[in-house]
Amino acid sequence: MPKNIAAFGEVMMRLQVPGYELLSQGNTLNYSFSGTGVNVISALARFGHNGHLITRLPANPLGDAAAAYLRKLGITSTLMSRGGSYIGMYFLENGFGVRSSRVTYSNRLESSFNTSPEGTYDYEAIAEQIDAVHFCGITLAMNEVVRQHMKSLARAVKQRGGTVIFDCNYRPSHWGENGYEKAKPHYEEMLQLADIVMMNEKDAMLTLGMSTDKVEREEQLEELIPAVAQQYGIHTIAGTHRSIHSDNSHSLRGFIFKDRTFTYSKTLTFAVYDRIGAGDAFASGVIHGELEGYPVEKTAQYAATAGMLAHTVVGDTPMASAEDILRTMTQSVGDVER
Amino acid sequence: MPKNIAAFGEVMMRLQVPGYELLSQGNTLNYSFSGTGVNVISALARFGHNGHLITRLPANPLGDAAAAYLRKLGITSTLMSRGGSYIGMYFLENGFGVRSSRVTYSNRLESSFNTSPEGTYDYEAIAEQIDAVHFCGITLAMNEVVRQHMKSLARAVKQRGGTVIFDCNYRPSHWGENGYEKAKPHYEEMLQLADIVMMNEKDAMLTLGMSTDKVEREEQLEELIPAVAQQYGIHTIAGTHRSIHSDNSHSLRGFIFKDRTFTYSKTLTFAVYDRIGAGDAFASGVIHGELEGYPVEKTAQYAATAGMLAHTVVGDTPMASAEDILRTMTQSVGDVER
Amino acid sequence: MPKNIAAFGEVMMRLQVPGYELLSQGNTLNYSFSGTGVNVISALARFGHNGHLITRLPANPLGDAAAAYLRKLGITSTLMSRGGSYIGMYFLENGFGVRSSRVTYSNRLESSFNTSPEGTYDYEAIAEQIDAVHFCGITLAMNEVVRQHMKSLARAVKQRGGTVIFDCNYRPSHWGENGYEKAKPHYEEMLQLADIVMMNEKDAMLTLGMSTDKVEREEQLEELIPAVAQQYGIHTIAGTHRSIHSDNSHSLRGFIFKDRTFTYSKTLTFAVYDRIGAGDAFASGVIHGELEGYPVEKTAQYAATAGMLAHTVVGDTPMASAEDILRTMTQSVGDVER
Amino acid sequence: MPKNIAAFGEVMMRLQVPGYELLSQGNTLNYSFSGTGVNVISALARFGHNGHLITRLPANPLGDAAAAYLRKLGITSTLMSRGGSYIGMYFLENGFGVRSSRVTYSNRLESSFNTSPEGTYDYEAIAEQIDAVHFCGITLAMNEVVRQHMKSLARAVKQRGGTVIFDCNYRPSHWGENGYEKAKPHYEEMLQLADIVMMNEKDAMLTLGMSTDKVEREEQLEELIPAVAQQYGIHTIAGTHRSIHSDNSHSLRGFIFKDRTFTYSKTLTFAVYDRIGAGDAFASGVIHGELEGYPVEKTAQYAATAGMLAHTVVGDTPMASAEDILRTMTQSVGDVER
Amino acid sequence: MPKNIAAFGEVMMRLQVPGYELLSQGNTLNYSFSGTGVNVISALARFGHNGHLITRLPANPLGDAAAAYLRKLGITSTLMSRGGSYIGMYFLENGFGVRSSRVTYSNRLESSFNTSPEGTYDYEAIAEQIDAVHFCGITLAMNEVVRQHMKSLARAVKQRGGTVIFDCNYRPSHWGENGYEKAKPHYEEMLQLADIVMMNEKDAMLTLGMSTDKVEREEQLEELIPAVAQQYGIHTIAGTHRSIHSDNSHSLRGFIFKDRTFTYSKTLTFAVYDRIGAGDAFASGVIHGELEGYPVEKTAQYAATAGMLAHTVVGDTPMASAEDILRTMTQSVGDVER
Amino acid sequence: MPKNIAAFGEVMMRLQVPGYELLSQGNTLNYSFSGTGVNVISALARFGHNGHLITRLPANPLGDAAAAYLRKLGITSTLMSRGGSYIGMYFLENGFGVRSSRVTYSNRLESSFNTSPEGTYDYEAIAEQIDAVHFCGITLAMNEVVRQHMKSLARAVKQRGGTVIFDCNYRPSHWGENGYEKAKPHYEEMLQLADIVMMNEKDAMLTLGMSTDKVEREEQLEELIPAVAQQYGIHTIAGTHRSIHSDNSHSLRGFIFKDRTFTYSKTLTFAVYDRIGAGDAFASGVIHGELEGYPVEKTAQYAATAGMLAHTVVGDTPMASAEDILRTMTQSVGDVER
Repeated sequence: MPKNIAAFGEVMMRLQVPGYELLSQGNTLNYSFSGTGVNVISALARFGHNGHLITRLPANPLGDAAAAYLRKLGITSTLMSRGGSYIGMYFLENGFGVRSSRVTYSNRLESSFNTSPEGTYDYEAIAEQIDAVHFCGITLAMNEVVRQHMKSLARAVKQRGGTVIFDCNYRPSHWGENGYEKAKPHYEEMLQLADIVMMNEKDAMLTLGMSTDKVEREEQLEELIPAVAQQYGIHTIAGTHRSIHSDNSHSLRGFIFKDRTFTYSKTLTFAVYDRIGAGDAFASGVIHGELEGYPVEKTAQYAATAGMLAHTVVGDTPMASAEDILRTMTQSVGDVER
Repeated sequence: MPKNIAAFGEVMMRLQVPGYELLSQGNTLNYSFSGTGVNVISALARFGHNGHLITRLPANPLGDAAAAYLRKLGITSTLMSRGGSYIGMYFLENGFGVRSSRVTYSNRLESSFNTSPEGTYDYEAIAEQIDAVHFCGITLAMNEVVRQHMKSLARAVKQRGGTVIFDCNYRPSHWGENGYEKAKPHYEEMLQLADIVMMNEKDAMLTLGMSTDKVEREEQLEELIPAVAQQYGIHTIAGTHRSIHSDNSHSLRGFIFKDRTFTYSKTLTFAVYDRIGAGDAFASGVIHGELEGYPVEKTAQYAATAGMLAHTVVGDTPMASAEDILRTMTQSVGDVER
Repeated sequence: MPKNIAAFGEVMMRLQVPGYELLSQGNTLNYSFSGTGVNVISALARFGHNGHLITRLPANPLGDAAAAYLRKLGITSTLMSRGGSYIGMYFLENGFGVRSSRVTYSNRLESSFNTSPEGTYDYEAIAEQIDAVHFCGITLAMNEVVRQHMKSLARAVKQRGGTVIFDCNYRPSHWGENGYEKAKPHYEEMLQLADIVMMNEKDAMLTLGMSTDKVEREEQLEELIPAVAQQYGIHTIAGTHRSIHSDNSHSLRGFIFKDRTFTYSKTLTFAVYDRIGAGDAFASGVIHGELEGYPVEKTAQYAATAGMLAHTVVGDTPMASAEDILRTMTQSVGDVER
Repeated sequence: MPKNIAAFGEVMMRLQVPGYELLSQGNTLNYSFSGTGVNVISALARFGHNGHLITRLPANPLGDAAAAYLRKLGITSTLMSRGGSYIGMYFLENGFGVRSSRVTYSNRLESSFNTSPEGTYDYEAIAEQIDAVHFCGITLAMNEVVRQHMKSLARAVKQRGGTVIFDCNYRPSHWGENGYEKAKPHYEEMLQLADIVMMNEKDAMLTLGMSTDKVEREEQLEELIPAVAQQYGIHTIAGTHRSIHSDNSHSLRGFIFKDRTFTYSKTLTFAVYDRIGAGDAFASGVIHGELEGYPVEKTAQYAATAGMLAHTVVGDTPMASAEDILRTMTQSVGDVER
Repeated sequence: MPKNIAAFGEVMMRLQVPGYELLSQGNTLNYSFSGTGVNVISALARFGHNGHLITRLPANPLGDAAAAYLRKLGITSTLMSRGGSYIGMYFLENGFGVRSSRVTYSNRLESSFNTSPEGTYDYEAIAEQIDAVHFCGITLAMNEVVRQHMKSLARAVKQRGGTVIFDCNYRPSHWGENGYEKAKPHYEEMLQLADIVMMNEKDAMLTLGMSTDKVEREEQLEELIPAVAQQYGIHTIAGTHRSIHSDNSHSLRGFIFKDRTFTYSKTLTFAVYDRIGAGDAFASGVIHGELEGYPVEKTAQYAATAGMLAHTVVGDTPMASAEDILRTMTQSVGDVER
Repeated sequence: MPKNIAAFGEVMMRLQVPGYELLSQGNTLNYSFSGTGVNVISALARFGHNGHLITRLPANPLGDAAAAYLRKLGITSTLMSRGGSYIGMYFLENGFGVRSSRVTYSNRLESSFNTSPEGTYDYEAIAEQIDAVHFCGITLAMNEVVRQHMKSLARAVKQRGGTVIFDCNYRPSHWGENGYEKAKPHYEEMLQLADIVMMNEKDAMLTLGMSTDKVEREEQLEELIPAVAQQYGIHTIAGTHRSIHSDNSHSLRGFIFKDRTFTYSKTLTFAVYDRIGAGDAFASGVIHGELEGYPVEKTAQYAATAGMLAHTVVGDTPMASAEDILRTMTQSVGDVER
């Protein structure tokens, strides 16, 4: 049954040099609009849910373009507000092989979203309309005003029995010096409110300051994640382990910790077209499986496959339908569908 | 010595989303014109033959564009007629890695070709001008009117001593429910008229309803194909076995059954740029080798190499000359030809 | 106050050769989705109304692309259904100066919309949700099944007190031989159901078979339109007179006949970028003015300005907001808005 | 009745900066292949004749691309030969308004055409196949070898009763210092061989050194052209007077002198898209009218309209069919042809 | 004799939707880098001077791209510094006819240039290297830090006998409420330092608060500009009067007030391709004429022609050489330069 | 410490079919300007040196475009001269997998560079300004005039104590029949003047006619290169061994022979985007290491990494900074740099 799901987060304009040129070689850019919330909600809309985005866009041609783009992705715009002057932007130069992709940000701290004044969002009214809400650690890093919106909304949803989802998603460059220290109390507050959390053992060690004697990633994971779940009272914790190979292919394996048990997806290895946004696709798969009551094995495999497919499409935002994902879970490498 | 070779078949407009976007992401399309007959004849023209296409195009700007495109490919247009209202179309979204390519068709059954009335083609006059004619199973699937044209032309060519070539090319979606049953009598009729046939063991089992106890593809092939040749009196049967690997490369091995003997090409493994049209390139290689009197080993290798090279160019239509193919048969992996 | 307005009509895929090349010169196309209903409803959504489209799209990648495009335009998709196999298409080659633009259609009669079976649309349920519904003469020309949907829906809306809008929009090529004769009874049926009608003196003479001794267009208009209004009991009749100048500029003057009085807009003369879709913009302006209760002079000027601005944007679909139109009504020729 | 018509001339690669950028601003070029002979023959093929080009192209990928492009234009390639190493090229930067277009040439004197050795063309064999042959003054300017081919071929065609057409087309930059003096004997030789000549009063004065006391262009024309016709025994002389207006529109008026009488087309004024190739379109109209036996008034108007339409299409090469031209001769300014 | 000329100013990234689409319709942008200083100095470099830009760019891929672009324009980069995080940006949607172009800015106040700390520029060292320096009113509007750099540099140049040029260029949106009041003292300070000033009667009235009883623009100009020159001790004041016509053409007339005398250029009327940057081209013409000691009539005509030509090229930045301008001053409307 | 380094060489215009189409399929080209000297000097400018190009460009729009492009690459233009009429060009069709890339040249022997008359370059003045100069074997192959410039300049630089660098770079197609014989004396002359030489064992055997009994490449190298160094008195000899794998990846290993010792880089294996220009990047790395006094192990690794990165960017010209190279030397396969 379709649910009403919202994400609270910033819409970023992605300005990408086409092909493999550098900004100092080319003269054209492709633009689109994305963000963790955009990606997760768009994927959930594609899975059949009513997906809302709680955000703020400028009332100018860039805001109009963003709103049109989000509608095209299938996102319902009734919870968006308009105001402020700017939209966050990032420029993307595609890497090739050993040459990394490069992201260059504009000054997003003054974006419409990051300057949304008190009273911008009616937490109670929103909480009444939705079954679940998604937040992410990138938003938590922005500034105190945004953090207040975030926590107030999470509390309102939790109080009304809605599901609170939190993706840890720690980006060192956003928190600056002594970032883990600064971030920890805010992360703890969100974890206490959250029902479903996206994280892995690195988040536990770095952001929450936990420690382990184990060396192998999987052993660390299996020691630390149950402790996190218990300490913060989290229902479901999920995440991925990824590795990048020298031939431009990646491997990805998802896990879900729930009811004191770890469930793993198969390790998927595949060629990668676009390196951004696969974590959001994995998260959308976990949320969909949880909301639909899938068996946890199916959810793990569905989420991992959603993450894999997101690497094969243009742009940050997953484009696969539930049918696409389920078909890919069973079929062999594809040729031409006629 | 160059021959006069014709194909009877539909010209399709291929509308392809550039790059790897989906139709719901992009806003531009590249267009070209192709079809099994177009591909085979264009390749044979590139090998030095006079290549004709027997088809019908609308007398409107789309028909003009198709005719211009076919001339550009080197196809002689004197056997084309103009009339009717529409051209068949298909939209192509490129797959990437585990994500398959997708083809979406327009309603081609009312195309100029598929509605060509009685009297459109002067079978006798055509048969007088040509040494060989090529048909394919896709055309056979269209409707009764087209099938009548096809069979009448095949008979006229056979009677005058020309070579009749038939590519089985069964597409399930074209025949609908109980397709194999519906198709069988038409396939049998064409096989009885044909001198050179493109097929493999699957066609024998599915379309002709033959059976075997063997499990391995090659064993099935070696049991069934000689039986087909004998039953329908076919001079040469050729085809390919292909496999798709997880790293976007394909393997291809061609066979020719002739004079009661199987001849195989080497198994070629190579990176693939465009997944459509390689079977037609293989067929053109077999036809060229047969018409030129190549030793069968050379024909098998030439045809397989033609198929491989067709996978490295843009579009459905093979672009390699005989020199390109012969050079590729002997050289190692290429760098830059200066 | 925003209204709930719907249009019943076909979505067409527009495939346009970029720049001024012919289809036989170029190799790329830009695609978008439009249609009279799409254009009118998109404009009304831009004016602040809730705009719905009642249509049927195929459940394939082309249908997905159309639905995404319509959402981007701001059209609510809850009244769209999915089914059938095809989408109507037209190819557009831009004219330049004395060289006309050319439109080439695909076989739209088998489109999902034109083959929508009985039971596709729940007339009563739709009529309950909307304040007004828009129809056009192009749809009326398609086939009997579509005409039945159209008339049934008009009756349902009228019975519940909603406003029925009808744009005569007669296209000779759609009705074939003796077209005016065939069309007349259907036009009369729609006119009897309609509250707001888009037409001019030519429609009265050709489609309804009325006659006049007058020679000048304006005299013909002022004699015939009041007779039409009286005979069919139409509340408001509006339309335009347009002329094309040799320097690629057009002139446009709108009229509204209401309460037994003609009101004219100023004659606007302006450079034209895209020749398609301006009539729909004019219609949307009339509908907006009527629904909002504008003074008729303001409505006439607003609608004419909307029509003019639609000629300055890319594509069939108007992109101007109410603010854009109101500002253009008062300002002089524009330079750069910073 | 369709005729066999050939042109002898060089194929040039046109490399055009798209839009209005300069070569030092942009980074892409559009390429096509043209030349006076290409343009004239392509137009005549579009009018229904069998059009041949007598030229020489390099046996490399550029020559292949040129040959494919010419086939696409409808030009029969059986009289083309392959050899030499290079193709002539020119770069085109589009002007805008007061800023002129700029053409920059590559070193075309070593092109395959301009280095075609003795024996390249079999004059007698060619002359037997064709009803008429077209030459132009640009070719005459190249070098002695090319001039010999040109004159030998003209003589062969004349001897067999074919029609010789010569377009004076004097380009000062090709002849260098004292160009008129150098050119005169060659022009006289060609005029004595020619039946149909494209020239106007300026050619008579500058290239042939004739003089007049008249000041007005038309008076000069009417004095000098009859003298030229008589002196060199020319059946038909035709040409245009053109003027460029400040609003990017041009005026064009064609004349034909034949049977001692001048016939003028209407003066056509029209917006211009591409400034190159309209003279060739006019010439093709004159040739078509003469070969088809049109009344001279119709030929003049047809040729002028062909010239006008050539200004409205992309590229050097006329794209209008006879139907397009005849329709434009009668209709008013165009909108959209549906 | 070539001079060393510098401009002090911000480099802006221009992100332009190609063609005539809106940001909410398209998905690609063309980017370039401009700014008043960039435009003026690039033009002067094209006229043969050594042109420097005194600015600050971020040390990231956007800064690299800007620096490469400026070098391409011929600007010497030795006076640029690198630091800070951002580059100012504006998005440009092209207008068509009655639809205005629209500019949307990013938050430029935190650009590397607008946050350049004390000590960024070594005023004395710079002043020693240059003969003249250009400033503009847009920079004056930014913030106090930038204003201090600007005034200090102007003083340093003046003290060493260099020429100080100031372009008033008042943009209301940059100064906010009571802008003229806030701006006046800063404008007065710059005018007292300046030798050559770009302004017209509107600047005198609005920014300097002067008044006149005259109604006609030219009478106002001739009353106010001499008063400004006297009050602030300015050697040369120049500017333009422009008007926009309904057919997309503009008229431009330049004036120079010097030695107590007004000199006017002819009124030039011409078609416009790009509406931005023509004022900078006019300024560069005045500076060039003054530095080269042209007669003032020639300077006025040269500058106006430079302004006109800047309207015919792609982008903000003038591309005409001195030869181009001088040739345009004498020739008629252009066709094709071969 | 930055050095003043110049290269003497031709600037070539590269005209590349985008994507993987052939010239006979496409209709657009991307253009850029390159050449061995351009590539080496541009890379050295990116490493912080002052990089000059000693060349001659035509004084026309193509020459302007080349000069602008070179400035954009960071090359100082003060040693370039303008004159002659043409620029060398090559067309590039990208290969894919087993299909090789193809290069087609224009007639470059009449380029401005290859026709530079005596007196074009002031050898002594140039030699005074630079610390090092780079030559390559391609230039040596052009004609006697160019060879004289090359040798005179090399002598002038050597006499003033500058470093002479010579890249053997033998291209068989440039020297024609008996090429090695013709080339040998010129190669010997350059080797005697050179301090740093780029070559490997094949150059020693083919161009210098040396022989060895060894079979393995490395053994041949270690026998022949020391002999070359001794015979011609060369301080440093460096080069690469490369191999191409079937999966579109390459392996590259660099060596440096200096102080009687061979130093090898690691063997790097990597995916390749653009096959042209990597040798120049390796050379620039060797020159940089030598001029900066890097330990020879670091130089070898730096140069090999520079060569590898050049294979990952668009175009012939390396785009990596010293920081990029040093970072790549230490990090693992890249993902996204935020």
